[in-house]
Formats: sequence, C-alpha cells, structure tokens
Amino acid sequence: MMLLVYGAGQLAQMMYLAATPLGIDVQAVDVASENVVNPISKQLITSDLASAISRADAITVEFEHVPEHLLVDASNSGKLYPNIDSILAGADRVREKTLLQKNGIANCQHEIITDVAQLSGITSRLGSKLIFKASRDGYDGYGQWRLSNESQLSELAAAFAKLDLQKVPLIAEAMLAFDREISIVGARDKHGKICCFPIAENLHHKGQLHVSIAPATDISEALQRKANEIFKQLATAMDYVGVLAVELFQCGDELLVNEIAPRVHNSGHWTQQGATTSQFEQHVRAVFGLPLGATNAVGVSAMVNIIGCENINRNLMGIDDCHLHWYGKVVRKKRKMGHINMVAQSHSALGGKLKQLTGYLPMEYFPKLIDEAERLSRK
Amino acid sequence: MMLLVYGAGQLAQMMYLAATPLGIDVQAVDVASENVVNPISKQLITSDLASAISRADAITVEFEHVPEHLLVDASNSGKLYPNIDSILAGADRVREKTLLQKNGIANCQHEIITDVAQLSGITSRLGSKLIFKASRDGYDGYGQWRLSNESQLSELAAAFAKLDLQKVPLIAEAMLAFDREISIVGARDKHGKICCFPIAENLHHKGQLHVSIAPATDISEALQRKANEIFKQLATAMDYVGVLAVELFQCGDELLVNEIAPRVHNSGHWTQQGATTSQFEQHVRAVFGLPLGATNAVGVSAMVNIIGCENINRNLMGIDDCHLHWYGKVVRKKRKMGHINMVAQSHSALGGKLKQLTGYLPMEYFPKLIDEAERLSRK
Repeated sequence: MMLLVYGAGQLAQMMYLAATPLGIDVQAVDVASENVVNPISKQLITSDLASAISRADAITVEFEHVPEHLLVDASNSGKLYPNIDSILAGADRVREKTLLQKNGIANCQHEIITDVAQLSGITSRLGSKLIFKASRDGYDGYGQWRLSNESQLSELAAAFAKLDLQKVPLIAEAMLAFDREISIVGARDKHGKICCFPIAENLHHKGQLHVSIAPATDISEALQRKANEIFKQLATAMDYVGVLAVELFQCGDELLVNEIAPRVHNSGHWTQQGATTSQFEQHVRAVFGLPLGATNAVGVSAMVNIIGCENINRNLMGIDDCHLHWYGKVVRKKRKMGHINMVAQSHSALGGKLKQLTGYLPMEYFPKLIDEAERLSRK
Repeated sequence: MMLLVYGAGQLAQMMYLAATPLGIDVQAVDVASENVVNPISKQLITSDLASAISRADAITVEFEHVPEHLLVDASNSGKLYPNIDSILAGADRVREKTLLQKNGIANCQHEIITDVAQLSGITSRLGSKLIFKASRDGYDGYGQWRLSNESQLSELAAAFAKLDLQKVPLIAEAMLAFDREISIVGARDKHGKICCFPIAENLHHKGQLHVSIAPATDISEALQRKANEIFKQLATAMDYVGVLAVELFQCGDELLVNEIAPRVHNSGHWTQQGATTSQFEQHVRAVFGLPLGATNAVGVSAMVNIIGCENINRNLMGIDDCHLHWYGKVVRKKRKMGHINMVAQSHSALGGKLKQLTGYLPMEYFPKLIDEAERLSRK
C-alpha cells in the first residue's frame, strides 16, 4: 500500500515514520519540481507524478498551500483525503471565514476587503485595533498588517491600493483580547467517526509556535467538550477525512476559531510520545479507512520547537522521558529544525523538566521556555 | 551522522525508524551480497562496503551470524559496537558457554562435544534427557537433536559421526525442567552505565518466540534484581556497548542463562509502545555515546509475533492501544512477518485485550494466544 503526500517536509517525514510499521509506504511530492521522492532521504523515486498518483492507494497533503492545479489532479483520482474543498478552505481565509460563518461557528469579528474603499469607517464597525491578513499564502507572520490606532489607516490604505484585492482579498479582523491560544487536533474517519486529542495550549512568538503543552492547564470538562463540539461541527460540515487542527482563542469560557489547518499540525506533535496514538499514525489510519486509534494522553507533555538553530546539546536526551525529533534540514533563520517532546506525570513536574531542559539549549532561540517552565512549576 | 548495520532485516528497519528522529541515518549491509541498502526500501546505496564503513560514525549488527571476515573488517574501523568478541560469543555456543563459565554465571549443566567418543557415559553425567546443539549457525530449532531416553544414544552417535565435530562442536545440555522462559533486555553505554528493561516472559512454540509479556507476571523485586545482576556481570565482563538480551530459564528462585543475543531482541519489541524508551532507540543512543533513556514500563504489554501468515485483519488496530508492526516481507513458512504490541493497565486487562485480538487473527498461526489470554485474564 502506498500513500502519496503533497509536500516533502517534516510532516511527510513523520507520516513516513508512522506509516511504515503499518506496512504502508509513503512517497512525497516536492510541489516545486513535481518530483516524487522518499520523504526521509529525498532520493528521487520518479519524476512522473501521474504514474505515482495512479500507483497510490491514498493521497494526502502535508500543507495546504499546494498549487490548485496539482490538487485538482490529485482529487480527480478519487483518492485525495481530506477532500479538495477542505484543503482549499485551509489555504484561503475567505473560504475559511465563509465556512465558519455558514456553520455558525464563533470566530473573530471580521470583514472581507476586496476594495480599498471598504476601509472607510471600518474602525467604527470593528474597533480601532485591527489586523489585516492576506486571504492566501498567508504564512505565519507574512502578509499581515496591524492597525494600532486610527491615524495609521490612510497609510495602510495607500499600501493596500498597490495590491490586487479582487484577486487576493484581505480579511480585516478585530484584534481580540484573548486569554490564550489553544488548539484542538482530531481525526474523522470515512464513516464519520470522530476522535479528538486533548486540547493543547500554544505559545507563539513573532508569529511562530514555540511551545505546546498538552493536555493544556486549567481545562474544564465543559471547555474540552465545547472544543470537541466545534471540531465535530466543522469536520462534519466539511465531510473531512484525516487529521484536522483547529486553532482557537480562549476568552474566558468562550472559544473563537482563529484558523483551521487541514492536516497534521505542529500543535499535535506532542502526541508522538504523549498520546496512545500519534497524530501521524491517526492521519494514516483515517485516510486508509483503518480504525482510528485511542487519543488519550499518557501523562502531560511539552513540545518545544527548535527554530533557526542547529547547535543542540544531545545530552538533553538524558532527561527522563525527553525525546528529540530532528528533521535533518539545513539551518535557516526562523526555520523549524526539529522539536523536543517531554512527558511528565503532572504540570508541575513538567515545569521542573523544562527547567532542566533550559540547561542544554541556547536560550536566545527559546524565548518562551524559561517563563513557561516557571509557570508550570507553580501548577 | 550515519549508523551502518550488518543485516538488512526487520531489526535494521526498526533501528532506522528509531534513529531517524535523532538525526541519524541508518544504512544496512546485506551480508550475502555485501551491498549497502536503505533498510526500509532495500534500495541500493552503494556496493562499495569499504566506503560505507569509512563514512559510518558507528557500526553495529542486527544479527550475530555475520560472516567473521566482515566482522573483522568492521571491527578494524574502530567503530563497531558491541565489540567483535561479544558478537562472536552470541554466534558460537562454545564461546558463549566459556564466557558464562569463566564468569561463574549459572547456566544449564553441559558438555562440549568435539568427538563422538565423548557420548560414552554422558547420560550418567548429565542425565537421560539431553539436548544437543550445534555450536554455530544454530538458529531457532535448527541444528538441534534431542535424546529422550538412553536407547536413542547409538542412533545419535551414528548421526554425529557424519559431522565435523572438531570444526563445529556440539553442546550437550541437560534438559531442564524449568518453570518458564524469561529474558532480560538492557543496554550498557560507553561509560559502563547499565539500564535494564523489566523482565519479559516468553512463550515459544516449535523453537520460535510467539508471545512476550512484559513486565512478566509474578516477578518479585528480588528476581528482577537477580536478572539485572546477571545482565550487569555479563555486559561488564564483555565490555559490551549497546542493547544485549539474555534469555533465562526460571526454576523457582533460580535463574539459569540459556542464551545471549548481542543485539536488539524479539523479546524486547514490546518496548516500542510499552516503555519510555524503545530498545531500538536505546541501542542507537548507546552506540553513539548518547545518554541512555529511561527504561520503565508504561503499563503492561503483550508482544504477539505474526509468523508465516500475511492475512491479518487490519481492523485489529481498532482495539484500544493495539499497534501493528509490519515488516513488509514476502510470506514464507515460519517467517516472522510482523508483530503486534498491546498495552493495558494490568495483566488481567491485557488478558481481556488478547481475547479481543483472537477475533481478528487466524488462530492456526497463533497457537499460544488463547491459553495466554485465559491465563492473564485470571491474574
């Protein structure tokens, strides 16, 4: 059996590692060259993508920004999971917002901007602190503009006048005073069965995820249920098959959807050591029509991203239940190079372990770690 | 970093899956062709073994029956772990017995037979129930002869007269009335630090391992300590680096060493889901001089070998905490095709899960499963 994955980065790599024991081969499409490669070695398997599509038993994506014509070809094979509309909804904020609105799912107050004229009076409608996001190719932190006070509006209008807003609209969103960012990662199988992992709590820095804690601290049963319900509503509406991640803002007892990612997700990496079934195996199970695995947490996990640095003291592996995941990439600024999963029996014990971890890492690359270790230690 | 593994079977494959997240590439030597291949795809990397040895950062074996001249070349590089004497001791019962005797480690009463004349009077010295094992290439069940009563001795003597006993001596062993077979799997690092996994209990059928339960049932702290002590004595005497498995016969409170395997071992496969660190990752850590990981069990595990059959109902993956490991080999009689790991919170719960499992498997290939499920259920 063979799974063809569009995208040849670390997510395809971790799918490969999870699928191999199931007797499933994973081959990755480098979407720039359209070559099919081994996800680990990147060795060329074939440059004939059509033959790979025809050999595949299932097709999936590791990221949503796959050129649409490639997705159409994959979808026409009848083997693409999740379906093309789900992937496109993850790649396009207008589609995403439309999906949320249509299904009555709470999200940030927003407007879709297709003409600069719409900026007129926008602060009276959405408030004076706004964030504008390009609807497409809006990677973490790119294609985003902030409005901190009304006086900047004319400056922004001038910048936006240079964009083709008909082709790539903007989403104007009210900047929310949320308590924290959390995410719910789960899977839906081909029969509509849904299994969610416990909520993860996510710490970002300059638009990139740095640390996830899962299960999150201070989650009531009611809040977990609410997150599961949002997940179910969305996944069902999308007729989704596979692992889906929903990023949420928590404001007290309220949850607002920030973003959906139609794929395995960085905030689910903790499941590799911290849950009975990893998100990678779960995704493979779902897209192959295999039974979903149990999603309970075994202990309490921290996932620490290694971003933009490669000098990691491997002796950190001596910390009890500390696991390195190295992606084998060439180092670049802001590039995710790997992650570390740690498991403990309580949040406070996990805080203690994170403190130990700081002794092995160059702290300038881990701006969230010390404070988070402190916070958890007090739990 | 690159680890070169002699042998390109499932053990090299599982080392590859464990080493990749550590940023370590694993390449396998097919010892028949001397080609270096990818352990999963078996794609040729190079037919120049010498260059692979020189590129490798560490070298190890997945089985002990590697032709000696290949081991010598590997050893001469200074990168071979465990050392060549340890590997040869695992491949040769005379060396193995000599090692045990020299270190005063309890094992079955035996004699080394290099001449048929030694059979004279052997039953008066070792008893009337004996097993004769070829010293080398004595794979599970092959090269073994049983003596059930003295009258068969002349027949055996005639058979042995045809063998070159000077070249390949036999070990004559008293057939032991042991209670059960257990094993201790552990690792020793380059500084001499030792970490053992909990004792596993092993059920064999016709010379092949079928089921392991770990931690074993009814193990006193004293017995675990005794097993750890034997492991430590042996590993230290051998100046061993890497994962080592010691198969033991339990007779009441006594432990007798049956065999040593200088490598990751089938009775340690349960650690993939059932322990904080898997034996495969532990071996890689040890041979690379990385800190050893924690070896505690998370729950209670069963490892069920899939032998000689390929029609496995994949819906078994729907059993809670049930994990398939498929090796992707062509089916042959008695060939290990894969294994299933299951984790539960108690031995009795594990028994219940094994009962569930029987519903998905063709029972003629799993002769030990129903009785073992029953036995555990009563715990």
